[in-house]
Amino acid sequence: MRVLGVDPGLTRCGVGVVEGVAGRPLTMIGVGVVRTPADAELGHRLVAIERGIEEWLDEHRPEYVAVERVFSQHNVRTVMGTAQASAVAMLCAARRGIPVALHTPSEVKAAVTGSGRADKAQVGAMVTRLLRLAEPPRPADAADALALAICHIWRAPAQNRLQQAVAQHASALKGRTR
Amino acid sequence: MRVLGVDPGLTRCGVGVVEGVAGRPLTMIGVGVVRTPADAELGHRLVAIERGIEEWLDEHRPEYVAVERVFSQHNVRTVMGTAQASAVAMLCAARRGIPVALHTPSEVKAAVTGSGRADKAQVGAMVTRLLRLAEPPRPADAADALALAICHIWRAPAQNRLQQAVAQHASALKGRTR
Repeated sequence: MRVLGVDPGLTRCGVGVVEGVAGRPLTMIGVGVVRTPADAELGHRLVAIERGIEEWLDEHRPEYVAVERVFSQHNVRTVMGTAQASAVAMLCAARRGIPVALHTPSEVKAAVTGSGRADKAQVGAMVTRLLRLAEPPRPADAADALALAICHIWRAPAQNRLQQAVAQHASALKGRTR
Repeated sequence: MRVLGVDPGLTRCGVGVVEGVAGRPLTMIGVGVVRTPADAELGHRLVAIERGIEEWLDEHRPEYVAVERVFSQHNVRTVMGTAQASAVAMLCAARRGIPVALHTPSEVKAAVTGSGRADKAQVGAMVTRLLRLAEPPRPADAADALALAICHIWRAPAQNRLQQAVAQHASALKGRTR
């Protein structure tokens, strides 16, 4: 399973590609940041993010795209830009028919560190260890994008089981009403 | 001047095209709503909005796109979807090199009714009068999109004068430091 993780942001949009399956060592395929100038017009910044994401999709052909779920509660000032950057990432993936998964920051932290309240340094340290890197990816947005991809790979089996259970339950209900 | 107004939303994205110049009667060229099903995946909804906006741009070739500026303070539950729909509208316009202007809800209300606190009915009534329509456009999102376009046409001369004043001031300062 090859996953592109996207940590959305207008100034720095973290992107990271991880390959592997749950229960086996994971491999980092690529990591980077799509940047846009803070003084550019918002429309142009969104176009630059689109171009950047498209390049990552072209080059790495992920089967899934995992994007951080944005909450309006946090960082009220920057949350609009984060929501807009995440929309562009989701749009690029969905346009190609690539399934998009959203994971909350605490799901991601819990997946890679065991605690939903872990700090940036702890996430960076675990990403470095799990992907057997020489040093933590910089900036933190790049490490967060890799953490998102790892989270998605590890949660996928559970999500698949859940979906199967829901489908079975639904078909059982259907059978009953016939 | 031909302006496409966009009242962004995931479930209903209002779109309206108005042509005219400040100080002259305005003409409605088209009005409608781009809808996406609430039970569809977010990525697919964003793709549907992109397709809808592209169709409006193709058909009406506006010179400007005016989008409602989204604030995180209001309607915390729906604001993320609004921000994401607005990102798609801005992206579509900027990709074609069409200038994007953002106007706040109170700027729009003040422009068409004289009061920044006007309600939906008042905005609808004034849009109907200003565009000489037989009845108020439905739903309210469609009327709001037309109000955005009207606001942009009426504010444009003031904004141009402001930009000219800023440019003159900047060149005067430059002259002084030589």
